[in-house]
Amino acid sequence: MLGPERRSHVLNKKEKEITAYHEAGHALIASVLKYADPVHKVSIISRGRAAGYTLKLPLEDRRMQSRLEFLDDIAVSLGGYLAEKMVFEDITTGASNDLQVLTALARDMVTRYGMSEKFGPMALDPAMGRTLFGAGIEPNEQSEEMAAKIDEEVKRIIDGAHKRAEEVLTKHRAVLDAIAKALVEIETIERDDFEKILIANGIVPKKKEDIEHQPLA
Amino acid sequence: MLGPERRSHVLNKKEKEITAYHEAGHALIASVLKYADPVHKVSIISRGRAAGYTLKLPLEDRRMQSRLEFLDDIAVSLGGYLAEKMVFEDITTGASNDLQVLTALARDMVTRYGMSEKFGPMALDPAMGRTLFGAGIEPNEQSEEMAAKIDEEVKRIIDGAHKRAEEVLTKHRAVLDAIAKALVEIETIERDDFEKILIANGIVPKKKEDIEHQPLA
Amino acid sequence: MLGPERRSHVLNKKEKEITAYHEAGHALIASVLKYADPVHKVSIISRGRAAGYTLKLPLEDRRMQSRLEFLDDIAVSLGGYLAEKMVFEDITTGASNDLQVLTALARDMVTRYGMSEKFGPMALDPAMGRTLFGAGIEPNEQSEEMAAKIDEEVKRIIDGAHKRAEEVLTKHRAVLDAIAKALVEIETIERDDFEKILIANGIVPKKKEDIEHQPLA
Amino acid sequence: MLGPERRSHVLNKKEKEITAYHEAGHALIASVLKYADPVHKVSIISRGRAAGYTLKLPLEDRRMQSRLEFLDDIAVSLGGYLAEKMVFEDITTGASNDLQVLTALARDMVTRYGMSEKFGPMALDPAMGRTLFGAGIEPNEQSEEMAAKIDEEVKRIIDGAHKRAEEVLTKHRAVLDAIAKALVEIETIERDDFEKILIANGIVPKKKEDIEHQPLA
Amino acid sequence: MLGPERRSHVLNKKEKEITAYHEAGHALIASVLKYADPVHKVSIISRGRAAGYTLKLPLEDRRMQSRLEFLDDIAVSLGGYLAEKMVFEDITTGASNDLQVLTALARDMVTRYGMSEKFGPMALDPAMGRTLFGAGIEPNEQSEEMAAKIDEEVKRIIDGAHKRAEEVLTKHRAVLDAIAKALVEIETIERDDFEKILIANGIVPKKKEDIEHQPLA
Amino acid sequence: MLGPERRSHVLNKKEKEITAYHEAGHALIASVLKYADPVHKVSIISRGRAAGYTLKLPLEDRRMQSRLEFLDDIAVSLGGYLAEKMVFEDITTGASNDLQVLTALARDMVTRYGMSEKFGPMALDPAMGRTLFGAGIEPNEQSEEMAAKIDEEVKRIIDGAHKRAEEVLTKHRAVLDAIAKALVEIETIERDDFEKILIANGIVPKKKEDIEHQPLA
Repeated sequence: MLGPERRSHVLNKKEKEITAYHEAGHALIASVLKYADPVHKVSIISRGRAAGYTLKLPLEDRRMQSRLEFLDDIAVSLGGYLAEKMVFEDITTGASNDLQVLTALARDMVTRYGMSEKFGPMALDPAMGRTLFGAGIEPNEQSEEMAAKIDEEVKRIIDGAHKRAEEVLTKHRAVLDAIAKALVEIETIERDDFEKILIANGIVPKKKEDIEHQPLA
Repeated sequence: MLGPERRSHVLNKKEKEITAYHEAGHALIASVLKYADPVHKVSIISRGRAAGYTLKLPLEDRRMQSRLEFLDDIAVSLGGYLAEKMVFEDITTGASNDLQVLTALARDMVTRYGMSEKFGPMALDPAMGRTLFGAGIEPNEQSEEMAAKIDEEVKRIIDGAHKRAEEVLTKHRAVLDAIAKALVEIETIERDDFEKILIANGIVPKKKEDIEHQPLA
Repeated sequence: MLGPERRSHVLNKKEKEITAYHEAGHALIASVLKYADPVHKVSIISRGRAAGYTLKLPLEDRRMQSRLEFLDDIAVSLGGYLAEKMVFEDITTGASNDLQVLTALARDMVTRYGMSEKFGPMALDPAMGRTLFGAGIEPNEQSEEMAAKIDEEVKRIIDGAHKRAEEVLTKHRAVLDAIAKALVEIETIERDDFEKILIANGIVPKKKEDIEHQPLA
Repeated sequence: MLGPERRSHVLNKKEKEITAYHEAGHALIASVLKYADPVHKVSIISRGRAAGYTLKLPLEDRRMQSRLEFLDDIAVSLGGYLAEKMVFEDITTGASNDLQVLTALARDMVTRYGMSEKFGPMALDPAMGRTLFGAGIEPNEQSEEMAAKIDEEVKRIIDGAHKRAEEVLTKHRAVLDAIAKALVEIETIERDDFEKILIANGIVPKKKEDIEHQPLA
Repeated sequence: MLGPERRSHVLNKKEKEITAYHEAGHALIASVLKYADPVHKVSIISRGRAAGYTLKLPLEDRRMQSRLEFLDDIAVSLGGYLAEKMVFEDITTGASNDLQVLTALARDMVTRYGMSEKFGPMALDPAMGRTLFGAGIEPNEQSEEMAAKIDEEVKRIIDGAHKRAEEVLTKHRAVLDAIAKALVEIETIERDDFEKILIANGIVPKKKEDIEHQPLA
Repeated sequence: MLGPERRSHVLNKKEKEITAYHEAGHALIASVLKYADPVHKVSIISRGRAAGYTLKLPLEDRRMQSRLEFLDDIAVSLGGYLAEKMVFEDITTGASNDLQVLTALARDMVTRYGMSEKFGPMALDPAMGRTLFGAGIEPNEQSEEMAAKIDEEVKRIIDGAHKRAEEVLTKHRAVLDAIAKALVEIETIERDDFEKILIANGIVPKKKEDIEHQPLA
């Protein structure tokens, strides 16, 4: 999930290491959090504009997404950024696409899906406002006060996911290192090998069946 | 009334259950609140982009809508969201269309119809402002202070309907479960069968005649 | 003066009663307040998009309108809304056009005609600002602070008219009922019959001559 | 100077009286204040959209206008509105054009000509900002705080002129009545007759020569 | 430097006197302040839309302008306005172009050149923001708080130059009168004659050579 | 890096000296700070619109940029402005392009790359907001409060780099003078000669190899 700032070219050694930890961060959090889709493949071979990628396996073809799923998705998106920061004490531009995605998710939770405690079931997205009645909502119709409260809620949701993602990376630092090391060596890890690393480190991989039987989220 | 986020496809078991409770929430509140239109049909068979739907029976062809009718309509729209939350302790994206509708209703009450206590009989919708006199109102003409007070009133109206809808669902939880269960089993409930469930649970269905004779709302 | 929300169709019994009281409200206030034009005809037969209408008789072909005339016009416009509220303890969408008109009148008093005490003789309408000098005024040129004070003045003017209109309806409730009753029965009341109702209830109808001789307003 | 709200038609008696006092107000103040152009002709015969007019005689063909001249011009523009208010205790829409002109003059003093004490020699008109350098100023570049201070200064200038105009009308009420009476009777007063009324009431008419020799304003 | 409000016509006596003092103000300050370009010619013969003009002699063809030069330029621009105010206790519209120029200079110092103490080396001009990266900066991206601080800095810079310009005019009032008197008499003063007036009043004219050898500004 | 205000022409003596110190400032800071690219060539020969230039040698073809690299880049950009200020106690328009670049870098750190402590991993650039979901973000969606906090963070980042750059110039003033002196004399300094000046003044030039082996930034 390393994004738009990169052109396709061969990564140098440092970039390879950063990219490995970045993708390992995404993959580890996706493997630990309950409502995230399990990992299908992790790679540091650049694809399109991205330096590496983590393929997640949607457990089933879903029509709806729930609040708990969104919260885990945000934490997974933060995984690359946080792994870089934890390991290198620096951050790269490679996370910008992740930040864009996770901020948009958090904002949609607040403004479109009634998923914030502060506002509850209320549509707050000016672009959605009044499509039913033919006339678009005026951009000025939403007050500054409301806009400021929305910004706070978005930040609060991201801060919560930040904390949870950090806990996962700290608790499972050894797994993070193992995944990153494997990525630097073999560049792409398929699902079976990935699950072996998890198991070797005491993490039970999610099974498609388990998840389908778990109480609805 | 589950909306735009869904494509037409067969629902999996979990989605079926969520959709059943969502529609049951709408239908139950519509059956209990005095000024809401009675239920004609409830279904979890997807229709267009919606996963399920609840058909309401407008008691007569009306030209005007009143404040009390709007308040009950908002509570009915909240029914799906609140049923999901109460039963699954999670919320899905399926309610987004309902939120859009009910927020627009609440805003119109405040800005177009003089139905808020704070403002009383005053037009506050910038888009309506001065059509009489040929010149459109300038978007900046409405102050931020006014916009913030409008946002508060809209939230207050929704919060009031929220409380009333929650009380209905809590008080009649058994009926909610019964409707949802029937929906999972037979997918579509016609009016007669729906009224049998209500009666079996001690709720007297609204009659078209009763409503036409009730004092004007 | 019941407005845009209505399509032409036969009114049901409830709507007829609401419309009758709505028009009666307009007509009664127009008959009592000194600077309002006297009533020419009242009807609950729908005309265009309006459910009913009250025709006022401009006492003479006038070029200017005065502050006192505007204040009475606003009170007359509030008459339909307030009659509905007083009689049915509910409000309908039918008043929305009245609200639009009276809010625009109050705003013009403040921003175009120097008729508010707070601002006095000063043009505050951004759209009028600088047409003399060829360059249009920039929408941002008016400060938020000024916009907020204008909104307050507009509300203050409407609140004043509200109070006066309410006093008229309360004091003459019997006349209001009489006019509404007649409207439900015969649907349209011509001037002569209307004045008979007023006289029967102790209100002396305005005469064109009286008004022309009254001290200038 | 009675403006846009009027269509050309014969004035009724009341309108004639209002228009007479309105124009008399302009003419009296123009005759008393030192830097205002003297009156050439006063009339209540409608011209274009105006109900009446007061022709002022520019003492010489000038290229520049000074702060003191602007202040007297604003007071003259207020004369019609204030005369209506003083005599009839009501205000008509006829002053709207005057308000537009005087507000634009006061705003230009503040934003274009450095004629306010608060800001001094500084250009504050967003539309003028940066024409020298080819790039237009962005509308958002001026802060709300600045816009609010400008609005205050504009109001302060108008309030000052208001006070001076009121003093003139109060002190010379007899002259105001005399001019208005003559206008109602003969409709148009030429310069010589106008100066006779002034002299009869103890006001010495301005002479072109005097003004050209007076110390520069 | 008397600007846009003037059409080409023969100046009357008063206007001639005002224009003479206005240009004398510019010329005197340009002759006294260290970093201003010396005066080449002063005239009250109208040129284009300007009533008079003061030609300054750029000491050398320069590529850069410095903060100290800008500050003196602003003071020179204020010279006409301040001379009018000091001599006639009134201000004319003739200074509007000067105000426009000096305000734009002060704003550029703050927003483009890092020449204010409050902000230091930072680009604050929304129009410059992000041209490097292809995407224009959004007008809303700059906060109101920042815009208000910029406005304050611009005013502070002008106030400083105001004080310095006033000190020059007060200290050298006799020279100001001498230049103005000569302008009224002979209308245009060439450089040699201008320097004679300076010398006669104890001011040593700047020499091109001196300035080129002075320590860099 | 002296920018847009300059047309191509031969520099006079003063401009040459200013340009020499300006470029020396950039070059010195680039040579001292750890994460800045080393200097390849320094010149005061104008190139396009720039009076001089400092070519930096990107150590390797990089795909990502890190927070520490951005901070050093900003300090290098400040080098020209600060050298002018330190040596001449004045600032020229020549730094405007540098200010534009460094402000945009600092803003991107905050809004696009999650590189500010205040906001952390969050996208704050309205232009990036919601491209994923097809609908552009509305300009008003970001609150004024958020915009003000972003402005503060941008300023804080620049202030930090300012302090570090100033320390470098103060500590190595002798080197600054040496580079500037050489530039005035020979106009262009190639890498080898540049490194000799550094070594002569006790600064060890960065080696490509060293940097590639240094721990990842």
